[in-house]
Amino acid sequence: MDVHIFSQPVTFGDCDPAGIVFYPNVFRWVDAAFHDCLRPAGGHAAICRRLGAVGLGLIDVNARFRSPILDGDRVDLRLSIESWGQRSVSLAYRACVGDKLVFEAREVRALFIKGDAGMTAGDLSPFREMMERQGHG
Amino acid sequence: MDVHIFSQPVTFGDCDPAGIVFYPNVFRWVDAAFHDCLRPAGGHAAICRRLGAVGLGLIDVNARFRSPILDGDRVDLRLSIESWGQRSVSLAYRACVGDKLVFEAREVRALFIKGDAGMTAGDLSPFREMMERQGHG
Amino acid sequence: MDVHIFSQPVTFGDCDPAGIVFYPNVFRWVDAAFHDCLRPAGGHAAICRRLGAVGLGLIDVNARFRSPILDGDRVDLRLSIESWGQRSVSLAYRACVGDKLVFEAREVRALFIKGDAGMTAGDLSPFREMMERQGHG
Amino acid sequence: MDVHIFSQPVTFGDCDPAGIVFYPNVFRWVDAAFHDCLRPAGGHAAICRRLGAVGLGLIDVNARFRSPILDGDRVDLRLSIESWGQRSVSLAYRACVGDKLVFEAREVRALFIKGDAGMTAGDLSPFREMMERQGHG
Repeated sequence: MDVHIFSQPVTFGDCDPAGIVFYPNVFRWVDAAFHDCLRPAGGHAAICRRLGAVGLGLIDVNARFRSPILDGDRVDLRLSIESWGQRSVSLAYRACVGDKLVFEAREVRALFIKGDAGMTAGDLSPFREMMERQGHG
Repeated sequence: MDVHIFSQPVTFGDCDPAGIVFYPNVFRWVDAAFHDCLRPAGGHAAICRRLGAVGLGLIDVNARFRSPILDGDRVDLRLSIESWGQRSVSLAYRACVGDKLVFEAREVRALFIKGDAGMTAGDLSPFREMMERQGHG
Repeated sequence: MDVHIFSQPVTFGDCDPAGIVFYPNVFRWVDAAFHDCLRPAGGHAAICRRLGAVGLGLIDVNARFRSPILDGDRVDLRLSIESWGQRSVSLAYRACVGDKLVFEAREVRALFIKGDAGMTAGDLSPFREMMERQGHG
Repeated sequence: MDVHIFSQPVTFGDCDPAGIVFYPNVFRWVDAAFHDCLRPAGGHAAICRRLGAVGLGLIDVNARFRSPILDGDRVDLRLSIESWGQRSVSLAYRACVGDKLVFEAREVRALFIKGDAGMTAGDLSPFREMMERQGHG
């Protein structure tokens, strides 16, 4: 299966008073890697317009931190699609600084559709086809 | 067991182009709730000085998003200590807007001690005693 | 003239490796104070719908930092409207921790209207009336 | 005079419900450009250790926003040193997306030294020499 690579330089302001990356910033990068992987298919806004959706939003996320990340590091994230469900997709992230694994994460995302009864999770098949045409999936 | 309550108003800038909270911000609030709960014991910096530690850092985190959070909402987080290990502590977060559950999260934290061989996880007993003296634990 | 007060607790994650607030966060609070001051008139989204605008966006901003802000501080921001122009409004912010002035800022905002030739700055009179009905202005 | 170039890809999460970049993020990039320009001299932490300082912190900042920045844009920042004072340095930033100017900013920074009477601004000459050896200044 295909892998999408996203590279993130780490700056001073990403770090906290302990001198290591403030962990919510890690999720900004994970989210940025996901959005970067949507660009060949037109990007999030265009994809959602085509699918009649508000967003490809998050249902569930977890991360395991293996090694502290520091100012000046470059984090290389490898994103792969772990599994497709009818109404959710599971994405795996593996992040390294050089050869060192610094964190792993998993996101479960759904296609948010605005309906009469609030937000519902739409059928992912058309999104899956888009991604497979780009070589992801 | 004791519960710590932390209240977070949601602002425009916390939200993304889909009009709902950008999820990494949720972890900023989870982390803020944890740090708020350390204040009666002197706060993170004073506690770490007493314990000879760099920080009470994260090993593992997960969150499940139940309902979108919007500009103008007030998120009430309830933090409770789920379990103490020798070298890690598990914290549970339950977040509501009014009566509606919006997300649940769990953090596993350790006491990061700088040693000759890099960062190690220190014995949590003295931190546990501090927290129990404050009525947490 | 009226003053709007907005209170912001400072947390660990707002601070950088020098142990003081990372300055872009100060602008998150300035923006949050502005949005807070819109709530009695219905909030930013409702106001923009009524005015046919995309947003009450920024044209110009400056800030002067007087004293470092630390984890555990509570920043009290006083927002006042400095002057109204036809197509822009100037907002003054004065932020204290206790009695100590920590920063001052000024924002110039306009009403962004999406037109055929891109974004333009709309007439602010209807917005000014809304704010004056709330006692701001 | 020398110019330092720093390139910043814009992602979905940098944008607000109006679909344009939330302006405090612009200052994260401005700060990141400054820190990037310190790397050839060893980076912020090493420079501060050599100079006995806590940080190269901000005294004053302003920005003028010329054109909205969108998800998927790449912002190219050009940083140049505008003027050196004894105890402060003025930095100019000019940011474009392609050929289009999107914002201009100016930072005034000082060398924060921790003394008995709190933080003071130290002599910048040794820092200036470091930067001039790298071709900045």
